[in-house]
Amino acid sequence: MQIPEFITHEDVMFFDTDCAGVVNNIAYLRMIETCRTHLGASMGMNLKEMANNRLFPAVVRTEIDYRIPAVLGDRVKILGKLDKLGRARFWCSFVMTRDTDDKVLVTCRQSLALVQMSSDQEGRPTRIPQEWHQQWAKALT
Amino acid sequence: MQIPEFITHEDVMFFDTDCAGVVNNIAYLRMIETCRTHLGASMGMNLKEMANNRLFPAVVRTEIDYRIPAVLGDRVKILGKLDKLGRARFWCSFVMTRDTDDKVLVTCRQSLALVQMSSDQEGRPTRIPQEWHQQWAKALT
Amino acid sequence: MQIPEFITHEDVMFFDTDCAGVVNNIAYLRMIETCRTHLGASMGMNLKEMANNRLFPAVVRTEIDYRIPAVLGDRVKILGKLDKLGRARFWCSFVMTRDTDDKVLVTCRQSLALVQMSSDQEGRPTRIPQEWHQQWAKALT
Amino acid sequence: MQIPEFITHEDVMFFDTDCAGVVNNIAYLRMIETCRTHLGASMGMNLKEMANNRLFPAVVRTEIDYRIPAVLGDRVKILGKLDKLGRARFWCSFVMTRDTDDKVLVTCRQSLALVQMSSDQEGRPTRIPQEWHQQWAKALT
Repeated sequence: MQIPEFITHEDVMFFDTDCAGVVNNIAYLRMIETCRTHLGASMGMNLKEMANNRLFPAVVRTEIDYRIPAVLGDRVKILGKLDKLGRARFWCSFVMTRDTDDKVLVTCRQSLALVQMSSDQEGRPTRIPQEWHQQWAKALT
Repeated sequence: MQIPEFITHEDVMFFDTDCAGVVNNIAYLRMIETCRTHLGASMGMNLKEMANNRLFPAVVRTEIDYRIPAVLGDRVKILGKLDKLGRARFWCSFVMTRDTDDKVLVTCRQSLALVQMSSDQEGRPTRIPQEWHQQWAKALT
Repeated sequence: MQIPEFITHEDVMFFDTDCAGVVNNIAYLRMIETCRTHLGASMGMNLKEMANNRLFPAVVRTEIDYRIPAVLGDRVKILGKLDKLGRARFWCSFVMTRDTDDKVLVTCRQSLALVQMSSDQEGRPTRIPQEWHQQWAKALT
Repeated sequence: MQIPEFITHEDVMFFDTDCAGVVNNIAYLRMIETCRTHLGASMGMNLKEMANNRLFPAVVRTEIDYRIPAVLGDRVKILGKLDKLGRARFWCSFVMTRDTDDKVLVTCRQSLALVQMSSDQEGRPTRIPQEWHQQWAKALT
C-alpha cells in the first residue's frame, strides 16, 4: 500500500503577509494545518466523526525551516506525507513550493498524538490504530 | 450602578500588519475580542465557568469603522463598554485610540447573544440575566 | 456588462473553530477576505501589481451578521459581489452558505477605498477608476 | 553583561482555542512572536525604526514542543531568552508556563536572521551586529 499523501494549494492573501512585505512565519503553519487535516481525513480521520467522538490529533512537536519567503499573490503548493508511525505518535512531513518556479519555500515535520478528550477538557493519549501499522508500516520503512 | 467598561492595551506586532504596511482589518477584531472578553468577565462571565457550563456569548452582529490605520510598534488602547440590554441580546461598543496622539483609529459595535451549547454542538439562545437588567438598565438609558 | 461576482469555497479547519465548538466570528472574515481579494482580482486589482504599485484596497467599514454557526468539517460557499460604486468608495456584499443544506450562515457588507501607500506608510485615498463606473455602474442601479 | 531576556503574559482567549477545547498549536506561536518582538526591542531592534529602515528579523527555523495544553481563561507566562549568536543567525529560546501551577506547557527554539528588505521585496541577509557579540557573547558561552 502506498504512503498516504495529500496536496493542497493556497493563494497568498493580505492576511498571510506582514509589513516586512512577505508571508509571516505563522501563516505557513495555518497552510500546513489545512494540508495535514486533509491528509488525516484521507487516512480515515473524518472531521465530523472527530468532533463527535472527541478523538483529536494533537501536534506534539513542530520543526519548520523557512527557506524562501512567499509574497502576496504567490500560489503555493503544500505536499504532506505520512512519514513515520510509532506506538503513540506519528510523524508527517511537508514541503511547500512556489508554483511559478517550483522552488522550495518551507519544509516542515510534525509529530502528532491521538488524544481522547473528555468532557472536562482532560486529554488521554491513545494508541496509534493497528490498521495504520498494517496498511502503511511496510511502505514507510 | 455604573455602566460596565473595560480598557485593554495592545502593542502592534508583525502578525497584526500586512504587506500594505498597516494593521490588517481582521487584526483589530482580535484586539476587540480580547477587550470584550475581559469586559464580559467583569460583568460576571467568568471564562473558566463558561468553558465548564458551556454557556457562551456569541457575536450576532459586528459593525466596525476603520478611520486611521495603526502601524507596527503603535500602542493602542481599546475601550469597551456595555451599550444596550435587550431580552435576548446585548450590545457592546468599542473605541480604539492610538496612545501617542489619542486619535481614534477604529470604532465598533457588536451585538451578542448568550448561547447554551449542548454536547452535540447545537446552540440554544438563552435570556439575558435578570441581574444585568437590574444592575445596569437604568444607567444605560 | 454583468455585475462582478466571485465564489470561493472553504473547508472548516480546527484553527477556524473555538472552544464553543463552532467557527469563531473572526474566522469568517478571513474567508470573506479571500473571496473579496479574488473578486477584486477579477475586477482588475491584480495582487502582484498592487504589491508593486502600492495601491491597495482598504476596508473602511464592515457589517456582518452571524446567523447559523459553521462547525468543523463543514464545507462553506462564499459568494461575493460588487454592490455599489461611489467616487471614493465601493461596496461589496457577501453571503456564506453551508454546502450540505444551502442554509445562509453569514451575510456581510464591506465598503472599501483605494489607498495609495507611500514609502513612509502614509496612505492617500484615490478615486475609484472611471472604467469601473463605465463598466458596472449601469448594472448596479 | 546579562543575557537578554523578556517576559510576557497572555490570557487565553476564545480565538486561541479550537473545538478540541484547548489552545490551537498555532496560537502559541503568536504568543511567542509577541514575546520575541519585545525581547528584540530590548536588544535594540526598535519596531518603529525597523519599519522605516526595513531591516527585519526573519524566523529561519522554529522547533516547538507541546507538552501540556492551555485552556480558555488560563494565564500563561512566556519567558524568552537570547540563546546563541552566530555570524548571520541568532537563536532565541522560549518557555511557556501556566500561572496557576507553574507547569511547563510549551518549549520553543527559533533561529533568526536579520534581513534588509529592498523596495522590490527582495531580502538580503545582513551580519549580526558586532555590538551584540561584544555585549552578550561572553554571557552566552
